Amino acid sequence: MKKQHADLLILNGIVLTMDKRHRVIESGGIAIINSKIAELGEVGAIKEKYSSEIVIDAEGKLVMPGLINAHTHAPMSIFRGFADDLPLDRWLYDHIFPLEAEFINSETVATGTRLAIAEMIRSGTTTFNDMYYYSCKMAEIVDKTGIRAFLSGALLDNPQHNGNTAEEVLEYTEKLIVKWKEHPRVNIGVAVHAPYSASPWLYRAGKDLADKYGVQLHTHLSETSWEVDIIYNKYGLRPVEHLEKTGVLGKNMVAAHGIHLNENEIRLLAKNDVGIAHNPQCNMKLANGTAPVTELLNKGIRVGLGTDGAASNNDLDLFDEMRSAALAHKLATGNPAVMDARSVLECATSGGARLLGIDDKTGSLEAGKQADIIIVDLGKPHAWPLYNLYSLIVYSLKASDVESVIVDGRLLMENQRLLTIDEKSLYREVKELSTRITKAHPH
Amino acid sequence: MKKQHADLLILNGIVLTMDKRHRVIESGGIAIINSKIAELGEVGAIKEKYSSEIVIDAEGKLVMPGLINAHTHAPMSIFRGFADDLPLDRWLYDHIFPLEAEFINSETVATGTRLAIAEMIRSGTTTFNDMYYYSCKMAEIVDKTGIRAFLSGALLDNPQHNGNTAEEVLEYTEKLIVKWKEHPRVNIGVAVHAPYSASPWLYRAGKDLADKYGVQLHTHLSETSWEVDIIYNKYGLRPVEHLEKTGVLGKNMVAAHGIHLNENEIRLLAKNDVGIAHNPQCNMKLANGTAPVTELLNKGIRVGLGTDGAASNNDLDLFDEMRSAALAHKLATGNPAVMDARSVLECATSGGARLLGIDDKTGSLEAGKQADIIIVDLGKPHAWPLYNLYSLIVYSLKASDVESVIVDGRLLMENQRLLTIDEKSLYREVKELSTRITKAHPH
Repeated sequence: MKKQHADLLILNGIVLTMDKRHRVIESGGIAIINSKIAELGEVGAIKEKYSSEIVIDAEGKLVMPGLINAHTHAPMSIFRGFADDLPLDRWLYDHIFPLEAEFINSETVATGTRLAIAEMIRSGTTTFNDMYYYSCKMAEIVDKTGIRAFLSGALLDNPQHNGNTAEEVLEYTEKLIVKWKEHPRVNIGVAVHAPYSASPWLYRAGKDLADKYGVQLHTHLSETSWEVDIIYNKYGLRPVEHLEKTGVLGKNMVAAHGIHLNENEIRLLAKNDVGIAHNPQCNMKLANGTAPVTELLNKGIRVGLGTDGAASNNDLDLFDEMRSAALAHKLATGNPAVMDARSVLECATSGGARLLGIDDKTGSLEAGKQADIIIVDLGKPHAWPLYNLYSLIVYSLKASDVESVIVDGRLLMENQRLLTIDEKSLYREVKELSTRITKAHPH
Repeated sequence: MKKQHADLLILNGIVLTMDKRHRVIESGGIAIINSKIAELGEVGAIKEKYSSEIVIDAEGKLVMPGLINAHTHAPMSIFRGFADDLPLDRWLYDHIFPLEAEFINSETVATGTRLAIAEMIRSGTTTFNDMYYYSCKMAEIVDKTGIRAFLSGALLDNPQHNGNTAEEVLEYTEKLIVKWKEHPRVNIGVAVHAPYSASPWLYRAGKDLADKYGVQLHTHLSETSWEVDIIYNKYGLRPVEHLEKTGVLGKNMVAAHGIHLNENEIRLLAKNDVGIAHNPQCNMKLANGTAPVTELLNKGIRVGLGTDGAASNNDLDLFDEMRSAALAHKLATGNPAVMDARSVLECATSGGARLLGIDDKTGSLEAGKQADIIIVDLGKPHAWPLYNLYSLIVYSLKASDVESVIVDGRLLMENQRLLTIDEKSLYREVKELSTRITKAHPH
């Protein structure tokens, strides 16, 4: 029998599918054709049916879905470690906003985005959901580097980038949505920054635009008690209630944080099918609290896992973030059984895909889905022994164990070598920029 | 002028000393002679004065003190991931104690210890403080692998290892102390397991033995609210009060955990100069709470950072542990300024050395101290840019960035290759053992 041609074969690995049946194939094979998983199964069956010039031998390695970063600000990686150990309001208003006003432009966004994508690919992330400025530039870089992304330029009442007025930024966003509409990996959405920085009018305008094109409405929500106070004082309502009254809650909303939520707000989120991007490390670092994730999940609310920006984390490492998620919720609830390893991994894979509305496309390894796959080395001492795969991934494995990364069937990293980013020239750029920043703002 | 001969020179790196003045040398040099740091300073001066056949060029890399793991159970690495997402009492009594009764012996301890030391060296740990069984075997492995360790076999009222009665275990311990007394890196101490598993008589016997030889008295203390209840019901006192009444608190005591402490107990710890080994990840994972570390430090109590065993963490990675320490205390206190990056790094280096009473010997890079040094790569995207070294180390760097490790002037890892452990044969041993365990206790 003539074998079918595959663009890429991955053979002999332990295949963790994260599908609904939680299937694990001890010695599996995956055939990739036209950017998709054509078939996966026992390695013998795959080898018999398919042939390819490109074969990855994953013997003794773990083959699993790429991770999904549900909330980040990729370009902020250029501010990593600039201002730490500070409360959110001082961090934001005394350091980050002034730095952004001075240094953020199309070129620096390009540098920061490349740096962030290099880090994300190296740590096994295949999709990220971003809110920042100059999405026009970011889209080009996502296109070139091969990662999958949702990009949205933040709308604020007083914008500093992408336009001089909120109306101009809305116009900028609409043009960008239209421009990239057909791209297989670049997804432009609408972002309204936060209830304390955007008026109800702006939220409604953002919502209308997102609905018009069927794209994501990305926002920050209920991150600090300070935000709850401000919104309550201004509108007589808590943040989620305020956005419900504004009429912008809905299935296309991805709300980052969702920490300070009362029972009624959780009910409103569930009723309106709003999704939450949970960022445990940033929430801990800024001492903002712990989102009630186990309650959100129990209410059927979609929850993804994000790193937030590298300026407040200070990395874009979802392995680290999974571990923190598992630990933080056990501590916060006093119950070591909550957020077990498998549930946490779901948030970072299939759950993240459901959050972003791409679970038909990615988030698990299944025939017909796009081939967003990572191959993970199990050869370091911290990976021994192996009793339970989910435990191993969440509690022991590290970003540095990720060996190869595939998005849409294309290899972006092979044996820890990035194939779409020139790291040397990238670091020269970062160094030049950080030297300028340090000169202007000495530590 | 004739140059002085050095056994090893480390040149051109960013030298972070962690000395009392927090000196950082942007382009530094270190000369190592007879296992000690003979001199460190500007690279030009060192190069002028010393020559060596062995020169490590650390250009663009970070040179810093090796990390100190203040509390672990190294051999338990063979149980890594066996039983997760469970409360401490069920984890310990339903899984760990039965597994230990069935599988722990001199050979399995050897395997687990080698696995743990491989992981610790790879993650930049140069000293660890251990409590387990078969310290006789562990001592041999520590001797061979070149790491620095404090080893103590746990005393319990009903011992399962090292002897049939507590008296026999005391005798075993004393022999071991005498045997290894002169070794430069193997330090045998006395461990009394915990107030709920050891009688006041046993605590006093352990204390007498430790005092007789001037060695450490290692114990678990105030780890769970369950422990506090048991001790209160039995003795009418809280755990620290109970140990004070027993007469065993003192400068040579290293107490692991110290979570559930009231004001009087903190006062007693400070008054008696007891040191605390803080294990944030294990404490979160088992939902035991957050130790009041900022208060302990404010009271002048010595605090080191530990991972606890890999069966409850599930790794021995102090980089990860530093990050969790910084984040957990910000969250617990609601104050993002506490446990700033430098304070956390102190716990893992100079503070750990003070805890173990070896701050005259290690914990910082200073002339005259033993050469316990790690060289860390700064070439991965998560290490860019560099604004603040302490922030970078605690919030961004990873165990996998550690490139070379030196203990007592001897290279134990060079460019990520372990020089004193054969990993391949180690993994074969671990695989054989974990297969036996899995067969006896299928998941």
